[in-house]
Amino acid sequence: MAALSMLACFVAVLLCIRTSRTDTKEDEINPSQSTSATSQHRTDSLTILMLLGLLLLTILTVWLFKHRRFRFVHETGLSMIYGLIVGAIIRYTSKPMDVSRDYVRAKIISENHSYYTDNAPTALYVSFFARNSSADPTIRQYDLGAPVDEPITEPPLERTVTFDPEIFFNVMLPVIIFEAGYSMKRRHFFRNLGAILMYAVVGTTASCLVVGGILYGTTRLMHDITFSLNDCFYFGAVISATDPVTVLALFNDLHVDVDLYAIVFGESVLNDAVAIVLSESVEVYGELSSDSFNTEALFQSVGKFLGVFTGAFAIGSLFGLSTAFLTKFTKLKDFPLLETALFFLMSYASFQAAEAAEFTGIVAVLFCGVTQAHYTYNNLSAESKDRTKKLFELANFLAENFVFLYIGVSVFTLQPLQWHLGFILSSFLAIVVGRFINIYPLSFLLNLGRSNKIRPNFQHMMMFSGLRGAVAFALAIRNTETEAHQHMASATLMIVIVTVILCGGFTTPMLQWLQIRVGVEEDAPGQMNQLASVRNQQGGGENGQQPGSTPSEKAWLVAKWYNFDTIVMKPLLTNHRPTLIETLPKCCLPIAKIFTTEEQLTQGLGGPTDHDSDTDMIIDENQLSIGGMSDHSQLDQASVSPNHQTGRKEPLQFDDGDLGQFEADDKPLTP
Amino acid sequence: MAALSMLACFVAVLLCIRTSRTDTKEDEINPSQSTSATSQHRTDSLTILMLLGLLLLTILTVWLFKHRRFRFVHETGLSMIYGLIVGAIIRYTSKPMDVSRDYVRAKIISENHSYYTDNAPTALYVSFFARNSSADPTIRQYDLGAPVDEPITEPPLERTVTFDPEIFFNVMLPVIIFEAGYSMKRRHFFRNLGAILMYAVVGTTASCLVVGGILYGTTRLMHDITFSLNDCFYFGAVISATDPVTVLALFNDLHVDVDLYAIVFGESVLNDAVAIVLSESVEVYGELSSDSFNTEALFQSVGKFLGVFTGAFAIGSLFGLSTAFLTKFTKLKDFPLLETALFFLMSYASFQAAEAAEFTGIVAVLFCGVTQAHYTYNNLSAESKDRTKKLFELANFLAENFVFLYIGVSVFTLQPLQWHLGFILSSFLAIVVGRFINIYPLSFLLNLGRSNKIRPNFQHMMMFSGLRGAVAFALAIRNTETEAHQHMASATLMIVIVTVILCGGFTTPMLQWLQIRVGVEEDAPGQMNQLASVRNQQGGGENGQQPGSTPSEKAWLVAKWYNFDTIVMKPLLTNHRPTLIETLPKCCLPIAKIFTTEEQLTQGLGGPTDHDSDTDMIIDENQLSIGGMSDHSQLDQASVSPNHQTGRKEPLQFDDGDLGQFEADDKPLTP
Repeated sequence: MAALSMLACFVAVLLCIRTSRTDTKEDEINPSQSTSATSQHRTDSLTILMLLGLLLLTILTVWLFKHRRFRFVHETGLSMIYGLIVGAIIRYTSKPMDVSRDYVRAKIISENHSYYTDNAPTALYVSFFARNSSADPTIRQYDLGAPVDEPITEPPLERTVTFDPEIFFNVMLPVIIFEAGYSMKRRHFFRNLGAILMYAVVGTTASCLVVGGILYGTTRLMHDITFSLNDCFYFGAVISATDPVTVLALFNDLHVDVDLYAIVFGESVLNDAVAIVLSESVEVYGELSSDSFNTEALFQSVGKFLGVFTGAFAIGSLFGLSTAFLTKFTKLKDFPLLETALFFLMSYASFQAAEAAEFTGIVAVLFCGVTQAHYTYNNLSAESKDRTKKLFELANFLAENFVFLYIGVSVFTLQPLQWHLGFILSSFLAIVVGRFINIYPLSFLLNLGRSNKIRPNFQHMMMFSGLRGAVAFALAIRNTETEAHQHMASATLMIVIVTVILCGGFTTPMLQWLQIRVGVEEDAPGQMNQLASVRNQQGGGENGQQPGSTPSEKAWLVAKWYNFDTIVMKPLLTNHRPTLIETLPKCCLPIAKIFTTEEQLTQGLGGPTDHDSDTDMIIDENQLSIGGMSDHSQLDQASVSPNHQTGRKEPLQFDDGDLGQFEADDKPLTP
Repeated sequence: MAALSMLACFVAVLLCIRTSRTDTKEDEINPSQSTSATSQHRTDSLTILMLLGLLLLTILTVWLFKHRRFRFVHETGLSMIYGLIVGAIIRYTSKPMDVSRDYVRAKIISENHSYYTDNAPTALYVSFFARNSSADPTIRQYDLGAPVDEPITEPPLERTVTFDPEIFFNVMLPVIIFEAGYSMKRRHFFRNLGAILMYAVVGTTASCLVVGGILYGTTRLMHDITFSLNDCFYFGAVISATDPVTVLALFNDLHVDVDLYAIVFGESVLNDAVAIVLSESVEVYGELSSDSFNTEALFQSVGKFLGVFTGAFAIGSLFGLSTAFLTKFTKLKDFPLLETALFFLMSYASFQAAEAAEFTGIVAVLFCGVTQAHYTYNNLSAESKDRTKKLFELANFLAENFVFLYIGVSVFTLQPLQWHLGFILSSFLAIVVGRFINIYPLSFLLNLGRSNKIRPNFQHMMMFSGLRGAVAFALAIRNTETEAHQHMASATLMIVIVTVILCGGFTTPMLQWLQIRVGVEEDAPGQMNQLASVRNQQGGGENGQQPGSTPSEKAWLVAKWYNFDTIVMKPLLTNHRPTLIETLPKCCLPIAKIFTTEEQLTQGLGGPTDHDSDTDMIIDENQLSIGGMSDHSQLDQASVSPNHQTGRKEPLQFDDGDLGQFEADDKPLTP
């Protein structure tokens, strides 16, 4: 009922917009009464109001669905459907545009504000540049002509609803991606890191190449559109960013198997980063070579890929680590508001720093989120923990719904779109094949080295959860300069809408059909006992799964990192035991003392305060000893002296793995 | 130490900006390597990074000061000082601007995105309009000239740091003002409503006229600047918005007398709204009359003032009430995230709706905040209560510090400023006189009708806490079109800086000197007993104050409203007892039943769940019976039958006041 009344209200608002627009038209006939400045402001406000109204409507409908346990449409799908409806209304009720004069709205930022009234500048120098391209802009001079009496005709509403795509990249996406990193279920993520990296890096690149290749083939057959090889690969990169937000929300509701969840989630998060960097690399390649194969350009774009990825990773981690450092060594904890503000500003600063350094902010903010969750979170006061979690949860919810709403509206209002059925159909074909190549061969390869095999029904589910969402859309509309790019944008729009609605809606039946176990107890923070039992169940339970085992080479690297993390990073950056004094060799004692706070020393060993964060951490004792990394401890068992294993007092159970370089120096600590 | 190391980091960032700018210059010599598009993006990112760095620095210094209990500088003052320092660095290390060609950066929003590359539009129609004015824009046609080879010279950094003032009005200010309304200590506010309205509406208008008058006088003596009468009154309106954020923060820390707090707070919040609407009205007057007195224009501007104020009040309240209604009648409570999102969207929608309806969004959002706190807050789930409070607290903190930081930077980087010592000094004189007229005569008048007199030391403190802040600044820089406005902007900047630093720094000594009692126990939610004792203490305590008593006419109106609120609004819009079934006359029973939820019926009478919100509410029983409104009950005692007073079962103690029109119908309810 509430939703219905809300719908009525909303239609009223929409009518109001239309009426106000009619008013404006009438006002323009009598220009002394109204001004295009105020009417512009009014239309902007009404547009925002309309979007706010749609979001409110979505919220109420979502509530109604949740209330009635109706699971076939997820909130993002719903936002999109409402967006589609309103977009259609705007499009088909809009008055035909006055094509006699192109509408150009220029916002002049000038030193001399008195320009605003009388003395207009005698010439404007306008640089026209392609967005997101490093080609030189064309600079044109415009000379002042005669004053024009007639006011500039108002643009149709459909164009005022078109946002600057940069707002996605600078405001919405950082929020969504940071939240992904910050809320990541780290244990499962790190346990399946090998598989996730494989799917995200190798799989996405393969998918990009396959999609690009297929489309290059099919576009040769279509004579009415022209796509260069580079365009095809660019599209391959853009469309390879999967975003199974709908699927994951349902996985979360239904408590699907944690490993499946971790792999699908991890892949989708990392693969956004990979797709963004890939598309930039393809652009670099495109600028250097002109449609003919060019080895140098290829290497440069591969170099760019690696450079951007590493740079963004470094900056993101650095900001996360600095925050951990600041929160550990200042008593900012006493003022949770300041602490939260610091946390928020540092996280956003990582994005801007990466952008300023010409890496990718999105990738930086992802790794910053992971680092913040892994280290800083442990130092925060209880209030800040709660506040940061809730703040980002809300921001993420709003940003996500806004993006999907906007995707819906865009279908009808985004202007430079070219629709070509053949291209859209072949791109559908291409993404299915691309996804196939991504999942099945890689799963086969991974299963060779895993004792915890990725079973066929999991593989099918992963194939199914390759839907496309916000990132693909944002990448596609970022650059709609050429006709080929406009085709890409429309194909991406269709793919996003169809996959979100279809795959989102059929997740529950698909899970049943594939006989994937749901209702697996998620190990909630603090439920250590339950956790252990779940893990045992998982090990020898109905699925017959063995604990995850990645190839030995990767396990060795991961183990090295775990060790370093436990012995140096965690003691250095968090307020938890063990301290550096305990973990570092004796020779480093003076340094260790500097970086150990009093709070850390008085902290109980594994006391009740630890639980909340430690269950979230990868160096969780129960996990390491019972399930998770036992594969690795088996692998490296030979290199560990039993003496060492029992001699240590702290619950650093991970030390049953290899200690690598620390092993030799470490022994003196255990008398 | 941390703050020092942070400072070092910050200087490094600043140097990095300078270096990058040098790089950019070098790049421009070799244009094939770099592009102005990417370098522009980079400079933007670096600017944002610099501001983020300053905010971080402020946070750390604030922490250090709080940690060391150093109270002379408030965080906003600190932000401003840091802003000043960085502004000075930017200004005096900037390379002199290339004056041979005016820098105009135009952002073209066009339907046809292919404009970006080759086919530039043959003509641009640019409307130059004065911001915030309803005069017709001048439209100029610019014709496409020859392509220009040389890239447009990068603007000096000082201009990239200049933000669009609209961002204050559309993002920062709504947050600050909403938080003010939402966090308002309502009981004390409503108890002193008469005095607050007097100071805010009458006082601010008087101050505006006095300041305008004085400046009109002094500017006649200065022959090098020209100010019209209208300019003077516009400045009077702009500069009359007080913003004692520094003082209030200290009042809060020191637990100053609650009535003093309420009056200073209430005045400053409402007076921002009054000043905004006043300045708009003066503009309307200015457009209609041209410097000669014009009665019709005067009436129109008074009409505009009343219309805008009422309209904004209505829209703000309406959105607040709708939210209360939605949260009461849907079970949105079960999903706190949805609830918080709804709350947030409705609040922001009130701003945009008022803007769309051409009222003032700021005023709407203030009253929306008050309504949300008064009604909606009671319906929210515990989690949402917490989340909304913390969310707005954080947003407010960031917005406030950002604004003050920006005020500091603006002194050196805001470009169209005219500095005139005489004008600045006379404006200082004028605001002191204006504040004097606002406080002392009005306090004398108010004291005639109050039994709880506003004592001379309180008056002096109020005089002292008339500092100017964000709103005055934002109003002043919104329109810097004419030379007179540029003088106003610089004078406002100086006034803001001097008053925030001086008055902010001397609040503690001033409180001591004026012998104003500090350490008064704030009545925290749920501490009913303490509350009662404080109130008793206040009544006959050391201050010798009697409970607040406003003139009987106002008391009658306020009492009417209290009654209506208790009998209709609260039962209708919140989930608390009493229900409408209990408060409405029998004839309305069917309607009452519709608007009573099950939850409301099962709610205990004055049970523990009520406490949290009811202590915040004006209809708090203890308050009404012991202190607060007892003046009013004395006034109307004669009209109340003792029978009625004892016959009622619910703890509606306010009924010892007049029930007015409800009295007759009400009796049947008490058998």
